[in-house]
Amino acid sequence: MKREEVLKWQRVAREYLDRAGIVLTPTETANIEIADLGLNEYEQTGLALITYINTERVCAKELILMPGQTCPQHFHPPVNGEPGKEETFRCRWGEVYLYVPGDPTPNPKARPPAHRADTYTIWHEIVLKPGDQYTLMPETWHWFQGGPQGAVVSEFSTRSRDEYDLFTDPDISRLPVIED
Amino acid sequence: MKREEVLKWQRVAREYLDRAGIVLTPTETANIEIADLGLNEYEQTGLALITYINTERVCAKELILMPGQTCPQHFHPPVNGEPGKEETFRCRWGEVYLYVPGDPTPNPKARPPAHRADTYTIWHEIVLKPGDQYTLMPETWHWFQGGPQGAVVSEFSTRSRDEYDLFTDPDISRLPVIED
Repeated sequence: MKREEVLKWQRVAREYLDRAGIVLTPTETANIEIADLGLNEYEQTGLALITYINTERVCAKELILMPGQTCPQHFHPPVNGEPGKEETFRCRWGEVYLYVPGDPTPNPKARPPAHRADTYTIWHEIVLKPGDQYTLMPETWHWFQGGPQGAVVSEFSTRSRDEYDLFTDPDISRLPVIED
Repeated sequence: MKREEVLKWQRVAREYLDRAGIVLTPTETANIEIADLGLNEYEQTGLALITYINTERVCAKELILMPGQTCPQHFHPPVNGEPGKEETFRCRWGEVYLYVPGDPTPNPKARPPAHRADTYTIWHEIVLKPGDQYTLMPETWHWFQGGPQGAVVSEFSTRSRDEYDLFTDPDISRLPVIED
């Protein structure tokens, strides 16, 4: 993604955080992560993130999704003998549709990007509105999509090691490349 | 503390969360913890808490302090061979004065309850305004006080085991007793 586009999507993410009443420092605002997962289809696939803290034991983030924007199906594997990442998603603003293993939900609310639909294989739906939360225990495949207004979601977890994440879609690479 | 008082302080805590734009479910609202630490001086010493999640590995809470209300000096010890609790405090609303080991700050902003002042022995001050945060690594003594408007503070941490907390003040017991 080009730097000017990163700046544009950072401004958009900042607007969602404002709606959620979430205050960032100027340094944090300048470092909002725009993750397009290497696909260059950010409005369809990707998300914005602020990482507040990520130590050996604890991680906390805010995740920002635009309407219909999808964080694609993935999984946090065990690393160096430690169990995979455990994470709780708590919706703060808007609405988010989360999919986890289990009985497929009839008429799910989210629709993945059509040209990548074959990489979405789990369909048990959890709808999170403000104040709702859901905990994913380690090694649970999942994906999620912003509702009609988008969403701001707090994530409380063990250490994040994004570089080890496994995605169903082979076109995806987690770490960003920014072109000047 | 009598149940009617608990209900009163829960309503007050709820007002602070509203000011911070933080949404709770009805069940969470009914379960706001009013911790008076056994002193029955809640307006001076104590705090209100919501625990969103507390698993073997991860804990997340909101802490609510009224103006000048103090969470007294304490410490989270190692338990069963695991290091003590690591915690990050992130101010969401208002202002909080946090004290940790280090050079005493001249003219500190907080003043502990006068009749318990001798149980406050650490005076290195960290001022947290909205968007500011501070991480306490395990086994760090600390105490904190709400600023002139009070404060709402998110806590991201490893597992909470409040029953093991050690307080400088021998009059304190962490777990609440509610009288009907």
